[in-house]
Amino acid sequence: MELSENRLLQRLDRLSEFTEPGRPWTRRAFTDRYASARDWLRKEMEQAGLTTRIDAGGNLIGTLAGSEPGAGILASGSHIDTVVDGGRYDGILGVVAALEAVQAIHEAGETPRHTLEVIDFLSEEPSDYGVSCVGSRAMAGNLPADLLEYTNSSGERLGEAIRRAGGSPEKLDGALRREGELSGFLELHIEQGRVLESSGTQIGVVTNIVGIRRYEIIISGRADHSGTTPMNLRQDALVGASRIVERVNTQAKERQSSNGYLVATVGKISVRPDAANAVPGEARLTVEVRSDSQDRLDNFLEPLIKWAEDAVCRNDQLRIEVRPLSASHPTDCAEPIVNTVAEAATELGFSSMKMPSGAGHDAAHMARLCPTGMLFVPCLDGRSHCPEESITMDDALNGARVLRRALLSLDCTAPQGVAQAK
Amino acid sequence: MELSENRLLQRLDRLSEFTEPGRPWTRRAFTDRYASARDWLRKEMEQAGLTTRIDAGGNLIGTLAGSEPGAGILASGSHIDTVVDGGRYDGILGVVAALEAVQAIHEAGETPRHTLEVIDFLSEEPSDYGVSCVGSRAMAGNLPADLLEYTNSSGERLGEAIRRAGGSPEKLDGALRREGELSGFLELHIEQGRVLESSGTQIGVVTNIVGIRRYEIIISGRADHSGTTPMNLRQDALVGASRIVERVNTQAKERQSSNGYLVATVGKISVRPDAANAVPGEARLTVEVRSDSQDRLDNFLEPLIKWAEDAVCRNDQLRIEVRPLSASHPTDCAEPIVNTVAEAATELGFSSMKMPSGAGHDAAHMARLCPTGMLFVPCLDGRSHCPEESITMDDALNGARVLRRALLSLDCTAPQGVAQAK
Repeated sequence: MELSENRLLQRLDRLSEFTEPGRPWTRRAFTDRYASARDWLRKEMEQAGLTTRIDAGGNLIGTLAGSEPGAGILASGSHIDTVVDGGRYDGILGVVAALEAVQAIHEAGETPRHTLEVIDFLSEEPSDYGVSCVGSRAMAGNLPADLLEYTNSSGERLGEAIRRAGGSPEKLDGALRREGELSGFLELHIEQGRVLESSGTQIGVVTNIVGIRRYEIIISGRADHSGTTPMNLRQDALVGASRIVERVNTQAKERQSSNGYLVATVGKISVRPDAANAVPGEARLTVEVRSDSQDRLDNFLEPLIKWAEDAVCRNDQLRIEVRPLSASHPTDCAEPIVNTVAEAATELGFSSMKMPSGAGHDAAHMARLCPTGMLFVPCLDGRSHCPEESITMDDALNGARVLRRALLSLDCTAPQGVAQAK
Repeated sequence: MELSENRLLQRLDRLSEFTEPGRPWTRRAFTDRYASARDWLRKEMEQAGLTTRIDAGGNLIGTLAGSEPGAGILASGSHIDTVVDGGRYDGILGVVAALEAVQAIHEAGETPRHTLEVIDFLSEEPSDYGVSCVGSRAMAGNLPADLLEYTNSSGERLGEAIRRAGGSPEKLDGALRREGELSGFLELHIEQGRVLESSGTQIGVVTNIVGIRRYEIIISGRADHSGTTPMNLRQDALVGASRIVERVNTQAKERQSSNGYLVATVGKISVRPDAANAVPGEARLTVEVRSDSQDRLDNFLEPLIKWAEDAVCRNDQLRIEVRPLSASHPTDCAEPIVNTVAEAATELGFSSMKMPSGAGHDAAHMARLCPTGMLFVPCLDGRSHCPEESITMDDALNGARVLRRALLSLDCTAPQGVAQAK
């Protein structure tokens, strides 16, 4: 037995059941329910033979000491928080599978060279404080002081919330790990899309995590009475916005290609005054662009706006304003880890394909610290962040098996950590 | 002196100052402030020599008895309630000008054949109970019992609110006026558009009040994660909705013509889940069509939906559903009144033009009862229902002068009322 199937599936069940009653699956970071789930998880780690601690960033870490003190650390994990009305497997699969892989290695009597860590990152989902990936940001030194001042609707600061979760916000000046302390990080996650399912592939080997650019575009025209303003006297902001929505879609389709990934979305729109009897005077929309190519990310907005100024603003007497909302860079996975995961899948007899991750993950932050990789398993109909999110138990087990095998391979091949040598 | 300029302007000033402090101009129907304004208005009517009463529909009516008991009633008026953050002249100009015209006729020692009425209609604007034109509906027998059951956010029924305003909701089974009791109704209002201003015309002679059709269109696709769903796997409801918004606009432009009025507007739009990182799975929009032609009203939606089903739904795998929200018919003004108003403007040396009213008014309900007309004066930059709404005092006085002259002409020419003859 490479790993205990029952144990893994039972832990998935047990952990998912820490949910707000009546609205599965909801386990928001920083709530009492989340704390209870973590208590349970900490005990499971300890029963598995791991030593546990919570670091300054509020991450729960279970450790299995390696045989070579200087070999550094191989880590795997994900998160156990959810969005509201979220999915049953998003996040927890990566934590439970990492625990199972490390426990199975331990129980098999093998002592790996590297110290192995199972990490439950604090608050990966967009939190009530307006920050996502809180724990992995902290670990990688990417949680600047101003983010700690963000507050939730009750006025609690994120820093205080991290302290409630067992962290030490005053120690989050820089990365929590020394350079070279980690030899590698590998995260298993559900795909949250339909690429694996629609191609009948068992394992996705992630090559990179897309960068994301978000903008707000504000189109200003003139609010008028819908009854008394003839068509030729209107400056209808929504008509202009609609043409931009279409253009975002067609431009993204033109720019996606077979050897690279690009998607662009208008996910939010609002108009003012927002009344059936008013010509909209203002429309606001978000444009989100994701790509594995920095170049494509950088070069999406400008032609869109140039087109809009020519084709929309001039004709309809509209004004357009762009406000950048956020920007993150694409993150390449480390080639040795990508190859190790692909080989592990092949050796275990699973079909696999290389693919980008269109969603952000804790791994994107961990890649600042150490060679990082990810693997995906299919999810039903691409559904995620919703109660319908589902995976087959075979896929859950396949992912855990590839994870275990890849960790063992990396234990043999990963370069020695430098932390202890310093 | 045909009328007292100072008195008219002072009454406009005084009445507008009944407003919620700090948010001019807000005088919502059924509030204490509205009641205070009506008390003041009632006293002004009485000082002008009119007898006053509140009818079962909550309308405040000032009456000047005519010389011929069988001649029937000529009425003029409008409303004194406002939307929230509304305009200073919408409604009250028509009430104050009617009072001034009747008072000036009275003070000139002329006793008209017809009894003259000045009417302040209850709650013309969309009320907190979801019903507009409450008083004129009631007067015309167009306030069915189910509307009286509508409630405001505190749970008060509209019927109770009418009673608080002095009305008798139990008497609203049919029209409050007998057939033929009214010989004519004429309402002065600000244009609420830019047609008069942009053509430099002093008086708008309203030929008809548009009918309005409102629909909700629901476009359903599939909500997906914006990062993990490639462009070719999407069913983006907002992209489909955007094409419909554009089509509403172009179809309206195609169908407006020089000898008829048609406007169509998408004034409200919303999407779900409404998140920057989600492909919209559902979009809802309102389509409003207004026209002076029943034919054009009836034939706008079908070709739009047919086009959408062909061009939008089939290509993008979207579904479309249409829900009628409301429908009203176009209302023709009575030709003798239209002509009388146009002649009065010409005799007084004012430029005038015939035009439809794109907005609804109490006059549209009064037209069920008796020959009805309206006249418009220009407003600054077409602004209305906002604090920037403005008119020149010259235009206010011009409107009142035309109103007075037209009432006097109608007093000579209008057919005798039949009420007393019955």
